[in-house]
Amino acid sequence: MALIDEIREQPAVAQRLLASPPPALGRLAAAVGRRRPSTVVLAARGTSDNAALYAQYLFAVRNSMLVALATPAALTLYGARPRLADALVIGISQSGRSPDIVAVVEEGRRQGALTLAVTNEGASPLAAVADEVVELGAGDEHATAATKTYTSELVAMALLSFALDAPTAEERAALAAVPEAMATALATEAACAELAARRASMARCVVLGRGYEYATAREWALKLQELAQVHALAFSAADFEHGPLALADPELDVLAVAPSGRSLDAQVGLLQRLHGELGARLLVLSASAEARHIDAGIALPADVAEWAAPAVSILPGQLFAYHLTRARGLDPDAPRTISKVTETR
Amino acid sequence: MALIDEIREQPAVAQRLLASPPPALGRLAAAVGRRRPSTVVLAARGTSDNAALYAQYLFAVRNSMLVALATPAALTLYGARPRLADALVIGISQSGRSPDIVAVVEEGRRQGALTLAVTNEGASPLAAVADEVVELGAGDEHATAATKTYTSELVAMALLSFALDAPTAEERAALAAVPEAMATALATEAACAELAARRASMARCVVLGRGYEYATAREWALKLQELAQVHALAFSAADFEHGPLALADPELDVLAVAPSGRSLDAQVGLLQRLHGELGARLLVLSASAEARHIDAGIALPADVAEWAAPAVSILPGQLFAYHLTRARGLDPDAPRTISKVTETR
Repeated sequence: MALIDEIREQPAVAQRLLASPPPALGRLAAAVGRRRPSTVVLAARGTSDNAALYAQYLFAVRNSMLVALATPAALTLYGARPRLADALVIGISQSGRSPDIVAVVEEGRRQGALTLAVTNEGASPLAAVADEVVELGAGDEHATAATKTYTSELVAMALLSFALDAPTAEERAALAAVPEAMATALATEAACAELAARRASMARCVVLGRGYEYATAREWALKLQELAQVHALAFSAADFEHGPLALADPELDVLAVAPSGRSLDAQVGLLQRLHGELGARLLVLSASAEARHIDAGIALPADVAEWAAPAVSILPGQLFAYHLTRARGLDPDAPRTISKVTETR
Repeated sequence: MALIDEIREQPAVAQRLLASPPPALGRLAAAVGRRRPSTVVLAARGTSDNAALYAQYLFAVRNSMLVALATPAALTLYGARPRLADALVIGISQSGRSPDIVAVVEEGRRQGALTLAVTNEGASPLAAVADEVVELGAGDEHATAATKTYTSELVAMALLSFALDAPTAEERAALAAVPEAMATALATEAACAELAARRASMARCVVLGRGYEYATAREWALKLQELAQVHALAFSAADFEHGPLALADPELDVLAVAPSGRSLDAQVGLLQRLHGELGARLLVLSASAEARHIDAGIALPADVAEWAAPAVSILPGQLFAYHLTRARGLDPDAPRTISKVTETR
């Protein structure tokens, strides 16, 4: 199966996961109820680390949990033994085979922490070391660049948040509406291809997001790097203002993801300044026509709950990266240098 | 005072801080001994966030503490109330005036957490809301690009780690040796200027580090962005292998910081591959002649303890960024667009 097929498959994959939430979630929630972990530790790399970043916001906002992104190298390089006994330790990995991610979950288990593996490979080393396993059930992902496992990981994180604190009817409906919104987002493909063709010479860019959409900005930048060989720099819009804003000039391409709500409100002034005052070229993914019309834009579906939006807003980002790759004469199904399973230690 | 003077002042500033450790550290350590916080939460942006990243490794390795980098936007945009009561909440800010950082410390205080401000401005809003204040005493920092406050923050983090768990004689000596090692690192200025002149046309680059030196890679990239307007992409060497490695080709400049020990061992194979197999141009900051001679390099002082090295290894990075800025015809004392105090919310 080619990358573009896996991109297009995402509404069906998300629908499947939502239709039969992994039973491990209920068991984990019961254990969390008993043990009341003080902190959630998320260990991941690459695309999965961007899903972890989304979860960091979601668990803080929806579950009032304190969330730490693990620094696996502290353990694997320096033998750190951070106190994990009172934590919930979650390893996220498509392949379940990154030794440093396995090492964090293993250390949690050794200390008696609650542990969870979120993976597309139920028979992997990561799944073997964790107390509970959430299988994504995304089907084989053949393309080197992860797409459907990323959005599955986001949906799995939302289901975990629901398992820990029961959703309102409104929240439940918002998550159930994601597959259809994904299908709407995929319908932008022709617009994505056209904008990508116009930017075929783009060798570098800045990618901005804020709040929940910072994860999307990072994941979009990663796809641009690994597929289109574009030097894409992702920032939270707030961090960008602390220095890197000096990069802005009329030669700069700025891509931004600002669907609606606070992630839009918190960025729109900066985007106007970047284009109006500093002359940067913008491409804005947004449900707001006003934001899209600052310069150029791609429409995101309206009425997606802000906390559920990252699983939708990355899709035009993936499509843009895919078509930019082709416009640059590269093969999206054979990105150079990298392999599907990266075994960092 | 110009930027170059502030860069050169760093050994004296670090020496001053080491000679009279802030009394707040002892009081905080006593409170930590009583309260035994489950997690350390670090809130910072920009350069200070890179100091927080260093602390995340140091506190995990040396103090076996679980450390979370705060996502201030979860609080300020979405009203999150993560459970902080059992945490030690530390805000790090040169100016003490970033509202979102103040908001995280304020929320910690409201919930009854132990709180600490680390700042160069004892009269700032951040200092006002925290239980204890570590003043950096770096003197006024006039340049927009932070340098001496960054290394002061690193030294302050090491002193805090010492206050929480008493150092061995060897560790004490290693930290005391930092100012002299900084002076040795500053002596590379002519070499930095020469290598910068040769790379005056460099518009983009990848900056790599690993472990403790990932913070250095990020801070070096930030100086290159805000001063030299170079599109600098920082990665932990492990994350780089998970996808962005596709960027590597003979047109790519790779800067790496790999002083010695594990941060060197964990990167040397990747650096050899990047230059030998993929043709990228390297500039390696290292105490190892072998690592420097893969392609080009700048010598870091030998015999600096790995956990103390980031306060030393950033100095040639700052000097390189400064001279590259001048080589590109830009003014390091007047970076465009950005201001010294950035009040993100």
